[in-house]
Amino acid sequence: MSKTAKIAAAGGTKTKVAVIGASGYVGEELVRLLLRHQHVELVAVTSRQFAGKTVAEVFPRFSHLEKTSELRFSEPDPEQLGQRAEIIFLALPHGRAAEFAKPLLQGGARVIDLSADFRIESAKTYREFYGHDHPVPELLGKAVYGLPEIYRKKISDAKLVACPGCYPTSILLPLLPLVREKVANLARILVTSLSGVSGAGRKIEADYLFAECNESMRPYGVPKHRHLSEIEEQLSVFAREKITIQFTPHLVPLNRGIITTIYVDLVEKIDADSITSIYEKAYGEEPFVRLLADELFPDTKNVAGTNLIDVAWRFDPRTDRLILMSSIDNLVKGASGQAIQCFNVMRGYRETEGLL
Amino acid sequence: MSKTAKIAAAGGTKTKVAVIGASGYVGEELVRLLLRHQHVELVAVTSRQFAGKTVAEVFPRFSHLEKTSELRFSEPDPEQLGQRAEIIFLALPHGRAAEFAKPLLQGGARVIDLSADFRIESAKTYREFYGHDHPVPELLGKAVYGLPEIYRKKISDAKLVACPGCYPTSILLPLLPLVREKVANLARILVTSLSGVSGAGRKIEADYLFAECNESMRPYGVPKHRHLSEIEEQLSVFAREKITIQFTPHLVPLNRGIITTIYVDLVEKIDADSITSIYEKAYGEEPFVRLLADELFPDTKNVAGTNLIDVAWRFDPRTDRLILMSSIDNLVKGASGQAIQCFNVMRGYRETEGLL
Amino acid sequence: MSKTAKIAAAGGTKTKVAVIGASGYVGEELVRLLLRHQHVELVAVTSRQFAGKTVAEVFPRFSHLEKTSELRFSEPDPEQLGQRAEIIFLALPHGRAAEFAKPLLQGGARVIDLSADFRIESAKTYREFYGHDHPVPELLGKAVYGLPEIYRKKISDAKLVACPGCYPTSILLPLLPLVREKVANLARILVTSLSGVSGAGRKIEADYLFAECNESMRPYGVPKHRHLSEIEEQLSVFAREKITIQFTPHLVPLNRGIITTIYVDLVEKIDADSITSIYEKAYGEEPFVRLLADELFPDTKNVAGTNLIDVAWRFDPRTDRLILMSSIDNLVKGASGQAIQCFNVMRGYRETEGLL
Amino acid sequence: MSKTAKIAAAGGTKTKVAVIGASGYVGEELVRLLLRHQHVELVAVTSRQFAGKTVAEVFPRFSHLEKTSELRFSEPDPEQLGQRAEIIFLALPHGRAAEFAKPLLQGGARVIDLSADFRIESAKTYREFYGHDHPVPELLGKAVYGLPEIYRKKISDAKLVACPGCYPTSILLPLLPLVREKVANLARILVTSLSGVSGAGRKIEADYLFAECNESMRPYGVPKHRHLSEIEEQLSVFAREKITIQFTPHLVPLNRGIITTIYVDLVEKIDADSITSIYEKAYGEEPFVRLLADELFPDTKNVAGTNLIDVAWRFDPRTDRLILMSSIDNLVKGASGQAIQCFNVMRGYRETEGLL
Repeated sequence: MSKTAKIAAAGGTKTKVAVIGASGYVGEELVRLLLRHQHVELVAVTSRQFAGKTVAEVFPRFSHLEKTSELRFSEPDPEQLGQRAEIIFLALPHGRAAEFAKPLLQGGARVIDLSADFRIESAKTYREFYGHDHPVPELLGKAVYGLPEIYRKKISDAKLVACPGCYPTSILLPLLPLVREKVANLARILVTSLSGVSGAGRKIEADYLFAECNESMRPYGVPKHRHLSEIEEQLSVFAREKITIQFTPHLVPLNRGIITTIYVDLVEKIDADSITSIYEKAYGEEPFVRLLADELFPDTKNVAGTNLIDVAWRFDPRTDRLILMSSIDNLVKGASGQAIQCFNVMRGYRETEGLL
Repeated sequence: MSKTAKIAAAGGTKTKVAVIGASGYVGEELVRLLLRHQHVELVAVTSRQFAGKTVAEVFPRFSHLEKTSELRFSEPDPEQLGQRAEIIFLALPHGRAAEFAKPLLQGGARVIDLSADFRIESAKTYREFYGHDHPVPELLGKAVYGLPEIYRKKISDAKLVACPGCYPTSILLPLLPLVREKVANLARILVTSLSGVSGAGRKIEADYLFAECNESMRPYGVPKHRHLSEIEEQLSVFAREKITIQFTPHLVPLNRGIITTIYVDLVEKIDADSITSIYEKAYGEEPFVRLLADELFPDTKNVAGTNLIDVAWRFDPRTDRLILMSSIDNLVKGASGQAIQCFNVMRGYRETEGLL
Repeated sequence: MSKTAKIAAAGGTKTKVAVIGASGYVGEELVRLLLRHQHVELVAVTSRQFAGKTVAEVFPRFSHLEKTSELRFSEPDPEQLGQRAEIIFLALPHGRAAEFAKPLLQGGARVIDLSADFRIESAKTYREFYGHDHPVPELLGKAVYGLPEIYRKKISDAKLVACPGCYPTSILLPLLPLVREKVANLARILVTSLSGVSGAGRKIEADYLFAECNESMRPYGVPKHRHLSEIEEQLSVFAREKITIQFTPHLVPLNRGIITTIYVDLVEKIDADSITSIYEKAYGEEPFVRLLADELFPDTKNVAGTNLIDVAWRFDPRTDRLILMSSIDNLVKGASGQAIQCFNVMRGYRETEGLL
Repeated sequence: MSKTAKIAAAGGTKTKVAVIGASGYVGEELVRLLLRHQHVELVAVTSRQFAGKTVAEVFPRFSHLEKTSELRFSEPDPEQLGQRAEIIFLALPHGRAAEFAKPLLQGGARVIDLSADFRIESAKTYREFYGHDHPVPELLGKAVYGLPEIYRKKISDAKLVACPGCYPTSILLPLLPLVREKVANLARILVTSLSGVSGAGRKIEADYLFAECNESMRPYGVPKHRHLSEIEEQLSVFAREKITIQFTPHLVPLNRGIITTIYVDLVEKIDADSITSIYEKAYGEEPFVRLLADELFPDTKNVAGTNLIDVAWRFDPRTDRLILMSSIDNLVKGASGQAIQCFNVMRGYRETEGLL
């Protein structure tokens, strides 16, 4: 599986970036990755809770990096941030991100949003799944969905990138090539996902206490998890018809990682080599997609801390069904790493910069 | 949800029992449960590896129980054991269990087998899934499948009980009532299961080392796990037609527990209350089945160490599909606890004896 | 190691008990143990947070027990509870427990307090370690320290029992026999303890989130953890001189369990057999103390879910030092189990009742 | 805490290196770090078990790196390896490493040994702690102990570097400055350490199975763990007198990390600022030593995956004792990372190259 990143790096210039809402797990991971990115100058990180503290104080694990003793968390001020940074990452809860995006975009900054606010185009779907009206409906449909393997070209010019959720990333990347090649029965897609606990964010709730999660596993959000909205919208765009799928997430006691298993009914008999060809064609040159050889299964420990997605598939001759399996690190390829991959695309840097 | 165990206990007599192959996790759990069962006299435990050592030495966690300092592991000798014990538990690997069962049954003992050897009736299916001929084909079809909630009456008279596997228990108990009531589309059943690591037994292999399992999760055995053989045979018996299902197990980093999620297409529209009625009718009086109220999800931590199975269901109006979810402790309801439940039925003891 | 509990059980009578503050981990474990205690009638459980809900609703893991569907959490009302229950367990935070104890005792009930409020006799020490004045100083010195292996006789008549903390239990039981026999250099005792996360209680704080504790371990509370106050007071009482020790607790990623390692300088050379004799004399007949044979080490998995303490020791000829090691389940022998052991003593029941 | 690595990097040249015994956790981590080191050309990796397989096949987590599909494991052949590589890392079990070192050194290669074989100078001590004669006694005393913070200058010219064990690293770095400044009572040093399970290596033994380690913690190797030999020898060299210490390791359920707590009696009263000065003087410019500010405690999660050691200290006025605490990643600063740090020193590369 040869992988070559052919996009040329843009000289030695640095891009000024800011992270708004940098105190959660996604924000922390963003900071980690940005600090070691050679084309990035991190000019601001914000957090209401930690305003005034240095990055080293808030994240002791980074305290050996000199910049972290100087860089202080500030209150989030969109106007000022928009003047200081060229690209701004929003790592805020959904609903709040949209409010920040608007003034930032108006001020001319480019925005990479890691919340759910701009992942779906339809105001109706947003209301259906998030339980309230979209705060800035005029921006709906203005964002590019931040899956570089699918929307690389659009991302390169985007003003506003909506980074996919962790579950959607693990589901869409294995599924889309099959949808594109019209081999999947679109009415019968079922998905089971397993997520480590950091997927819930740094939420201080009883459900996520160590003693509640350790030696525990549980399905949740059945039958209508919020991420369905963006998964189905993306599938529908690709298929040019309305697609509804089944999706069951489970919470599992490990820190990082998602395992997704997808059941696909094939529209007609197709041999194993053809499936392999479809994936090789789609992802053979992608630096972050590993197509696993026949005998291997995805395992979260092989992708933890990386921006990789491992994809495997098996045809079941007993049921004529295809089983797709994938694994990602929910905080990297499922959030911050993918955001930086988008950033690299937007700025014309080598796509793997800061990520390998 | 009222649960009453109405089967009368048989006086104060004790039954002499032996455990053959008591050194694995299933065997250890059997010993734990038998030691505190008031109608049991544990006369022998065997293990080639530990012959000569006391139970207290092999399992330090039980060393405070006086019997464990006296009871010594012996070499397994079917003839002698058959004379000393009335009921014999086989906690051996598949293939080896069958060899022991034959002389024991011939000698007049009743046998409760926890291996896979007698779970399926068809010699052909056994060979297909286990890769070799059945060692004692003349006994195939002589065993009762040890799911008391389904086969209680047959178990009470059985000479040979084949205890179900852990995955099958978690799958069959939620599914069978729907099959019986003919509401499930039998051609379209899909199952995803998650298992803790003790489900692999005390296998000393690299795959099960702590550092390989912790912070790891992975599908395996796709698409044709061995347990499919007994699941499909049981479903087919119930449905009186050949049923093939999809089944994907996953290994997850916790000690004990299985979570199973089952996708069922309904043959016709059916309201939620009817589903509830089907389960209430099937299990309303069962002491070990908990039907979870609407807002609850199964969680392994609620059944760990118990013989309970938690069952929940949701109807998805978007897909017209029913999602069944269950949780068990793989070593208890999925193995040793269920074996003792069968034992209680066979001996006419209160079914919950030693299990609550 | 023969263990016999010689205390006679008191007929078939049941004792009415209540648990105040039953919503934390200690309270939940108390409820679990009390529900299966054959001489207990649990008449009330209280919790401000859960008032009105049934025990089955709050603790789904107990929902198969019929009583749990009937018993509802109530607001804590000392006067009324004192009339309904003979013995009342307080599983409240320190400071609040003392306020409840006073009216209950005045009303004639006997109280078993699991907080730190009555574990120390000195108002000065309380203020030094807990940072505020004792709320009911007139009760200081009125409680019996609830270590049955040490104070069994006093506990049997006590009106107010102060159950030891989890760390103190794991430290005092190994140490006190050596102090009593005057073989330990009291000026040079050092203790290191490791605790599972449930030891912090059901505190909803960022520090105890799964993703903060998993793959983490850390010392804390150095050099002056609160539990030092009761450990040192107990040691001083025994030694009849003021003793100061070194104590370092660590937080470790598992649910339940404490491992304690104690370094003891001997006052004079003493052979290994003498140490063994001291422990056999102290604990040879104790049902919950297991003195581990020479080659064994304590392991939390051997005591999890039980009221046992495992104790081992090694003499180091290179340093002339004795190393003591112990393990307990912090929620059982370190809290709720020990409280029930005290209860059994207070009521003259078999001491192991409901605990084996 | 400003940290600057002032050692100049040696141009753009690459050094040819080989790893002998690359199939364990330490070997895997070495390969991971060497693959991304810009001044390294990894010319060979050996493993009897995996000879013929590619690195990508044996370690799927690295399979996206192009070199890993080409580089194949070979049988270890010291003569040939000595000709192909300038510096050779030995990641073999103790005893076997020594046998390889001799021909390699004779052939002119420089050797970085990660086993225990050359960590101690005394043949007598080796026999005492390892239970057999040293296989190549003529090499004893020829190695430099690979703690760059202490022996940087000697390492730079060394032919044979003996990398310290994981426990010794976590113990010696906090202790040595105090020994050097003569403030510690050398007769009274006690150490407690906690180690994650990868510290045991990829040993396929029942003790390290997931279900035996998860929800378990246990002391072991008391009172005379093998690592005492090198700890005491190093302390004695520094102190110029024979030092004996107390050391108790514990096995704890996490993958990576060591926490060490050290108790030091001071020879005379000394104020907190003086201790801080001692550490600032010793490590203020060290790139991999973080001296934690007053309120912080070491936590393995802050060093996992890095070559850092976090060091904290507290003075206890109640006992006049100093408590030192440290954390490292046992596979990085405790093994492979430190080996590469030594490699960087030996080759005159920037010391942090490939490690930050």
